[in-house]
Amino acid sequence: MNQHLHLITIGVKDFESSRLFYSQTLGWKSSSASSDDVAFFQAGGVVFAIYPREKLAEDALVSPQGSGFSGVTLAYNARSESEVDGIINDLKSKGIQIIKEPQKTFWGGYSSYFADPDGFRWEVAFNPFFPFDENGNLKLE
Amino acid sequence: MNQHLHLITIGVKDFESSRLFYSQTLGWKSSSASSDDVAFFQAGGVVFAIYPREKLAEDALVSPQGSGFSGVTLAYNARSESEVDGIINDLKSKGIQIIKEPQKTFWGGYSSYFADPDGFRWEVAFNPFFPFDENGNLKLE
Repeated sequence: MNQHLHLITIGVKDFESSRLFYSQTLGWKSSSASSDDVAFFQAGGVVFAIYPREKLAEDALVSPQGSGFSGVTLAYNARSESEVDGIINDLKSKGIQIIKEPQKTFWGGYSSYFADPDGFRWEVAFNPFFPFDENGNLKLE
Repeated sequence: MNQHLHLITIGVKDFESSRLFYSQTLGWKSSSASSDDVAFFQAGGVVFAIYPREKLAEDALVSPQGSGFSGVTLAYNARSESEVDGIINDLKSKGIQIIKEPQKTFWGGYSSYFADPDGFRWEVAFNPFFPFDENGNLKLE
């Protein structure tokens, strides 16, 4: 298995609410491959998908039961501290729950968090040590 | 916030076991940006990171408590059904827990699942409807 993560799927409790959150509140365009109960978003070099939680659990042969922290965070990397501030201000104006206001981090960056309708944590960060490639993806050595 | 997911982090219970799982069992090369308690893996167009669960929760201002299904699956997209079979056979030979044997899916693909040390579900799938770009990332319309 090569070193590649192609697609991440989050299992959501209310598919329509989550679809609207990503497609209208965040303004992301869903792929034409989407259907009534799955939405795919080309999110740079990876595909982000939302799918009903019970169906995702069924597919992965795991009980859908679960509570508390998912154990996963998703990150959007901005190009500057001011871009982070601008994004968080924009998300606030859209009524999105900001979990952590933008602030300096111990590792020399600048970071904030918001939550999606299921509470999945999205970090909006500026990491001055992480370069981007020509497609806007992170490119680490 | 543009339509981009740059980095996904999983919070792990035993950092060293997880680091060995990804770097030695799977054979992925970690980035030089990694340190004693975080490992970054360039995974195609996205960066995959592992970090102690309690620290991740602390960073995201959420209680580290949680149990059951994480609500997230990660996927590796192969180029053919036989590539899926080959990968799963290889993972089995390395003692990795296969959750779902490779099988045809209702949506016209071919899919299997394995679990990492924390039980995070990785799907290894062939989706004949999802094309790749020149970098080996999925590219949906």
